[in-house]
Amino acid sequence: MKKPTWVVDKERSKKAEASETVWLFGLHAVRDALSNPAREKLRLIVTRNAADKLSDVIGAAAVPPEIADPRKFPAPLDPGSVHQGAALEVRPLNWGSLEDVAVGPRPGTGDGPDAGAAQTPPRLILLDRVSDPHNVGAILRSAEVLGARAVIAPARHSAPETGALAKTASGALERQPYLRVRNLAQAMLALKEMGYLVLGLDGLAEATVEEALKTQADRPVALVLGAEGPGLREKTRLTCDRLVRIRAAGSFGSLNVSNAAALALYAAQPK
Amino acid sequence: MKKPTWVVDKERSKKAEASETVWLFGLHAVRDALSNPAREKLRLIVTRNAADKLSDVIGAAAVPPEIADPRKFPAPLDPGSVHQGAALEVRPLNWGSLEDVAVGPRPGTGDGPDAGAAQTPPRLILLDRVSDPHNVGAILRSAEVLGARAVIAPARHSAPETGALAKTASGALERQPYLRVRNLAQAMLALKEMGYLVLGLDGLAEATVEEALKTQADRPVALVLGAEGPGLREKTRLTCDRLVRIRAAGSFGSLNVSNAAALALYAAQPK
Repeated sequence: MKKPTWVVDKERSKKAEASETVWLFGLHAVRDALSNPAREKLRLIVTRNAADKLSDVIGAAAVPPEIADPRKFPAPLDPGSVHQGAALEVRPLNWGSLEDVAVGPRPGTGDGPDAGAAQTPPRLILLDRVSDPHNVGAILRSAEVLGARAVIAPARHSAPETGALAKTASGALERQPYLRVRNLAQAMLALKEMGYLVLGLDGLAEATVEEALKTQADRPVALVLGAEGPGLREKTRLTCDRLVRIRAAGSFGSLNVSNAAALALYAAQPK
Repeated sequence: MKKPTWVVDKERSKKAEASETVWLFGLHAVRDALSNPAREKLRLIVTRNAADKLSDVIGAAAVPPEIADPRKFPAPLDPGSVHQGAALEVRPLNWGSLEDVAVGPRPGTGDGPDAGAAQTPPRLILLDRVSDPHNVGAILRSAEVLGARAVIAPARHSAPETGALAKTASGALERQPYLRVRNLAQAMLALKEMGYLVLGLDGLAEATVEEALKTQADRPVALVLGAEGPGLREKTRLTCDRLVRIRAAGSFGSLNVSNAAALALYAAQPK
């Protein structure tokens, strides 16, 4: 008999936790990880061709490249992975605690908050069981571009940090904090105590993001999005300060979660 | 010797034109196509289980279901396709001419413009060689939700109407015009003559979408987006009235094209 999906998922996630390594693949993702000094690199497998293309970052990365034959590329990747002849085994990045990302200085701005970060109230994206790695990857990418401080998701039932996620994130995984918390509702309560306004996205909400922020644009804001279909869980919904919708999004059809996250973040930008 | 990609593409597109049929798959896409009276349906292959789930729409669709064994599903789909036991062969939808979609009443609003459509100046999305079906599918979905009149792309070098595109569009392919034109620059010139303001998206542009529309929000607007990486082609760029960027999108990183399209459309909404 076939194992039920949740058993397979659970076993896979246990296995991943035990080994705690990730295979990144593709020239872009591997380049960005090699260039990231905070990234612990374990093993680099490249074709001669890919080694040439990455030569400028391979030298400084202090992980010896293993040159592989493109016809039998030995990295343990999913069969459909477009690896472009480059694979890198790494450990997940450690982004610190919820408080670190929510209150501390923005990563990449040095020890103290820089002028820009000090002027701009922080924005966070919280994901309630968004399990598709392509969606989470696209959200990390938009979150970085639109200046969100972090993307936060529960440790379980969320897309793990994988090669597929890294590839969709197109480098953003190296720079944009993707923090996994034990319990999303507890994280939301903690954020409220830190002064955050916690807004849950819901297509049927009365107020738009802009309306909810009209008098509160200078507050730190956390935007909570659920998976397509189920949406926000009951407990998540009840823990929000307010439910909001995207302006101009019509009554039928629904947005892809990565597009919804980008629009919510855009709508919540201090003008 | 292997044929060059462009030869393969050309042969494939000729073949597609000759046969001019598309296999849609997945419960959602098949359900929406079956429910669409404008969709010409040729062949429906379903498992017993899928037939049950679709029973409410199969009856009215006037295409006899062929019941298939889930273990050897006979529809000619790509091996990785998650068909959920449902596949439907159809002809591409005919959305009429550029003028029909750009000037005529919004589809689904009956013969004459309804009150809403009459009040709202139309918005169009133009895609310059966006070839990834998942991106185009996501764009159709956002375009529908945000009320764009159509998505327009050149006949060549764009994602064709396929099952993968339909699945990502999550039903929007049945309702949101996806019009293929022979030449994108000529379509842009024609839109200008119809009174459209044609804005090209470019991360390095000075003005934001909002700034460009400040005094022209009541005009019909066409937003032109290029593929990730190459961006807008030279000729496309020169044919725009103006280049614009997304507000608040930081200096490094770049947006996924479907997220960029959603944000541009949102930013161009009449307030």
